[in-house]
Order: sequence, then C-alpha cells, then structure tokens
Amino acid sequence: MNQIDSMERLVNEFSRLPSVGKKTAQRFAYHLLTMSEQEVRDFADACIMAKECIHTCKVCSNFTDKEICDICSNPKKEPIVCVVKEPKDVTAMEKVREFNGTYHVLHGVINPLEGKGPNDINVRSLLTRVSEEGIKEVIVATNPDVEGEATAMYIANLLKPLGVKVTRIAQGVAMGSELEFTDAVTLSKALSSRREM
Amino acid sequence: MNQIDSMERLVNEFSRLPSVGKKTAQRFAYHLLTMSEQEVRDFADACIMAKECIHTCKVCSNFTDKEICDICSNPKKEPIVCVVKEPKDVTAMEKVREFNGTYHVLHGVINPLEGKGPNDINVRSLLTRVSEEGIKEVIVATNPDVEGEATAMYIANLLKPLGVKVTRIAQGVAMGSELEFTDAVTLSKALSSRREM
Repeated sequence: MNQIDSMERLVNEFSRLPSVGKKTAQRFAYHLLTMSEQEVRDFADACIMAKECIHTCKVCSNFTDKEICDICSNPKKEPIVCVVKEPKDVTAMEKVREFNGTYHVLHGVINPLEGKGPNDINVRSLLTRVSEEGIKEVIVATNPDVEGEATAMYIANLLKPLGVKVTRIAQGVAMGSELEFTDAVTLSKALSSRREM
Repeated sequence: MNQIDSMERLVNEFSRLPSVGKKTAQRFAYHLLTMSEQEVRDFADACIMAKECIHTCKVCSNFTDKEICDICSNPKKEPIVCVVKEPKDVTAMEKVREFNGTYHVLHGVINPLEGKGPNDINVRSLLTRVSEEGIKEVIVATNPDVEGEATAMYIANLLKPLGVKVTRIAQGVAMGSELEFTDAVTLSKALSSRREM
C-alpha cells in the first residue's frame, strides 16, 4: 500500500465522524502521524475495546458493558421511566442529579423523511416494562423538535391505555436566555403553558 | 474493563486530536459505538496502517512510504527547493501546480516560547542538500507570522554564505480580499513591497 493510499484511507475514515469534513479529517490524519507508534496503537485499541465491551442494556437499551446497566440494576431507583432519544441524553439527564428513576433509550425518533417509522425505534420493550415493572410514570424527554414531538405523541397514545401516567418535559424559554432573541414558536409555547405563581 | 472505563478511555483518546474538546470527543465516541464492528476495525486498522507505512522522506522529510518520496525521486524536477513548515504545506503548494521544484519540510519553526530552537527543526540536512545537489534557489515558504519570519531570516543567513539564491514568498494583500478589512501590518507590507507595473 503506498503513501497516498494509506493516507487517503485514513482521511476517509476520519471523515466518517460526525461534522468532520475533508479538511478537518486531514488535520486529524497529520496529527496522528506525529503521534508515537504506541500512542496510535492505544488510540486504535481504545476504539476496538469500546466497541467490543459496550453493548445495549437488556432493560433500558442504554450503552453498558453488563447485561443490565448500573442504573437499571440499582434497587433504590423510583418506578419512573424517562424516555430519551439517545444514550448521550441519559448522560445529560444524569448530570442534573434530580431525577432518581430509570431510563429508556429509543435509539432514534420517528422520522418519515429518513424512513424511520414506529417499528424502527426501541418502543415495544417500553410497553413490556410498563406492564411488568409496575411503573408509575413515564416522562417523555425526546427533543423539542418536530420529530421529537411526534414521537412523544405516539408514545403517549401507546401508553395511556395501560393506565400509566405519561408526562412531557416542560417547553418554554430557556433559563438565562433573553426574550428578545427567543424564537416565536418557543415564546408561543411559553405563553400557552404559563403557570400561576 | 467496565463501561465507564472503556468509554472514558475512548473519549480521552479522541480528545487528543487537534481542536477536539470533551464534548466533541464524546460525540465521536458515541458515533463510533453506532458503527458496525467491521467499520470500527477498519477505522482502527487505517490508523495503525498509516502510522506503520508512512515515515519521512530521506531527502526532504515529507511524509512518504518509500525511502525517497515521489517528488524527490522525480528526475524532471527543477533544482529549486521550497522550504515549508509542515507536510500539509506541501499538499497546499502542490495544489497550485505552478511550482516544479522539490520541497524541504522543517517539521516546525523556531519558537522560543515553546522552547523550539534552531536545532529542533530539520534545517541541517537542507545545508547538505544545497551543497551537494547543486540547488539554484531556495524559496522560504514558512507562514507569514512572527515565528515563520524569524525562521525564514535564520535560514537565509545560514544559506547565503553558500552562494545560493534565497527568496521569500511575497507578502501583501490576499487575492479577493478587501482593503477595508485588511490589517495594518499586511497593508504596510503590501505598500513597502510594491512593484512597478
């Protein structure tokens, strides 16, 4: 394999990373060549090890190296499930330290434009969990965009017949933001969802 | 190794890439987990292969997989050497398709603040090349910043006693730019280096 080939191949591989274009991929590739052989091996090894060790939790489908993840196997958790789109949303929620329930990761949202229907997201196992685990509340925390809203509606319609309380995270003006720069849709939502003080 | 460890390790490895912070590294790591096992293996393999195959050219120190790179081993090249800071500068120069000489990669510039002195850049072999290869001109194409200028001055002083013509790439207003937004130092350089039409 000659230089152009192995270099081009490396640049192509780096280009696969999210929001990495050709120029950035080239910078990453040149940086990699300035690293020591051991460092490059460590880097490659970390990629393979992570992929080998980490799979999805049998209960909530979050990434874990165990059969059931630490959150799901913790007996002190309340019987409340927070439904999120992706594993990184769990990380974001856990940072808040105010939620003491478990999670359910959909691994996507309903998105007809991308050909993703209700059967392409991890929602069936949520129904089983609600019936079998004695869950009291399901908080739908998908993103506040069109797809997230549609998915939230779909899940609510699916769960309500089971008699479980289904809630949606509040939508309104973000803390620390300024009304002046807040978009009209958000302001309208903040007005219609206003609460008594 | 548990999930936190292998995930944290992967995020740390991605953080080493230039201008990649913790957040971006996390996005890369999560993206990697959504790739297939084969894709992750290909990615890791591309890193190791590139590091194994690519080293520096014996003559010009540019990255290559041969003992002497394609440019240096091309007998049709003119006896002109373009001195650049990094291998990616060679890529930039080659895109112009107007220069038909060879290159010399310094792998850095003189930068006292970072503890880089004249002995830390690849300049000794340039002296040997100039004496032995019958080079007619050395174009110093280091970046037009303080370190690049200092390095250019250093190289010029080193080479002139050998009787070789030493030139510096022109500095002035960039093509397509507007005078209004050009900084004073560049304008001053453009004025003092003005040429008769």
